[in-house]
Amino acid sequence: MRVPIETRYNDYDSRGHVNNAVYLSYFEAARWKLWLEHFAGEPDPPVIIAEATVRYLRPALMGVPLLVDITLGEMRTRSWTWNYRVLDARDETPLAEGTTVLVYFDYETRQPAPIPESIRERLASA
Amino acid sequence: MRVPIETRYNDYDSRGHVNNAVYLSYFEAARWKLWLEHFAGEPDPPVIIAEATVRYLRPALMGVPLLVDITLGEMRTRSWTWNYRVLDARDETPLAEGTTVLVYFDYETRQPAPIPESIRERLASA
Amino acid sequence: MRVPIETRYNDYDSRGHVNNAVYLSYFEAARWKLWLEHFAGEPDPPVIIAEATVRYLRPALMGVPLLVDITLGEMRTRSWTWNYRVLDARDETPLAEGTTVLVYFDYETRQPAPIPESIRERLASA
Amino acid sequence: MRVPIETRYNDYDSRGHVNNAVYLSYFEAARWKLWLEHFAGEPDPPVIIAEATVRYLRPALMGVPLLVDITLGEMRTRSWTWNYRVLDARDETPLAEGTTVLVYFDYETRQPAPIPESIRERLASA
Repeated sequence: MRVPIETRYNDYDSRGHVNNAVYLSYFEAARWKLWLEHFAGEPDPPVIIAEATVRYLRPALMGVPLLVDITLGEMRTRSWTWNYRVLDARDETPLAEGTTVLVYFDYETRQPAPIPESIRERLASA
Repeated sequence: MRVPIETRYNDYDSRGHVNNAVYLSYFEAARWKLWLEHFAGEPDPPVIIAEATVRYLRPALMGVPLLVDITLGEMRTRSWTWNYRVLDARDETPLAEGTTVLVYFDYETRQPAPIPESIRERLASA
Repeated sequence: MRVPIETRYNDYDSRGHVNNAVYLSYFEAARWKLWLEHFAGEPDPPVIIAEATVRYLRPALMGVPLLVDITLGEMRTRSWTWNYRVLDARDETPLAEGTTVLVYFDYETRQPAPIPESIRERLASA
Repeated sequence: MRVPIETRYNDYDSRGHVNNAVYLSYFEAARWKLWLEHFAGEPDPPVIIAEATVRYLRPALMGVPLLVDITLGEMRTRSWTWNYRVLDARDETPLAEGTTVLVYFDYETRQPAPIPESIRERLASA
């Protein structure tokens, strides 16, 4: 799924580049939008994030329109990986790429839990 | 002008409401978008912000789509006011309103400067 | 009360100035610290913010150590005002000043509520 | 080097945990502070960030005092790695750990450049 990003003026640092930490917010915006579209009705999904990586390929300059391409990576019993690419929306030049590992979580037992089959199917079709 | 806001998961605080400081980022996103559309080609306008106010009317809850309505307030020789309303995009319930005072600035002399006529006209038509 | 602010690299915008929205986070950091010191044991106070204003006096440049001076303004039955000044910590040059209006809130009835006497006393001595 | 972190109210998400993207800001705050102490006089170092990783071990709850332990990892000709651990400042429970790869950068040629010997020495002693 491709998610356009509305950058904000204070996403940019003193050199006019998107700040490194902000990419994780872009990743989050993309997976949140994906979640809302595929799992309507539950704004705050029962997952925790276990790991995140970003590789910064080219600076995202002020004024450049951005989009995030989010795709499913590996799916395991209790966790799965999202892969992300941040692209210049005009010509799809890759600016950054990364991953996050999400763990399905049971907030009652405070433990990771198997991903329910219904969610597993919807993730696979995302 | 009406600007849809892409909220981000970390705009929300521990009660699931948009954090009070984030509204100023929404105002900024709106006036930046307006600037980019009306003053194309210059991503970083020569203005400084002199004053900002926000009145919080109702909490903006997670999942509620937002838009900012930005309109020109008073225009003086060297400064002008933007008025903002943050609305629930579904039914236009007002959630917050506010203002910012912008000062036209000459970065060479480091002084406020009269707003050029060409900019004055485009502001008035914004 | 005076609260030193640990600025962060992404507090600064493309001109190397603290971004206008970030001042509200500094105000929040100051009143949160004050709250934690005077009202120990409750990290998330039962208040809502009704209004905020900032006047930006001088840009806060990268590398300048900052502090926030927070003092009680007017106290009413259900609400009170905090006054803030953001100072250059080296010589106390004022860089910004502002206010927030806080409303004491009963999260059960979802209504503003009279400020309890014990809190009123501690606010007055803050 | 150990750097206390002043958390901010809007670092926390709707579950009262430090948001995942904010950890990269904590890493940045730590390496910026280290830079300012060891390389006084230059607030904005000539480096770019090539890669970042975070492993989230335990949620950082509201009210928990945090510190970042930053140490030098591998040093190569043009780049080096910082290792980070985010700890509960009271008992040093690790909450997160991660790395960033920094590239020394010549802003005139727009190219990575060998790390000068003087900087190499100060990094090694950091």
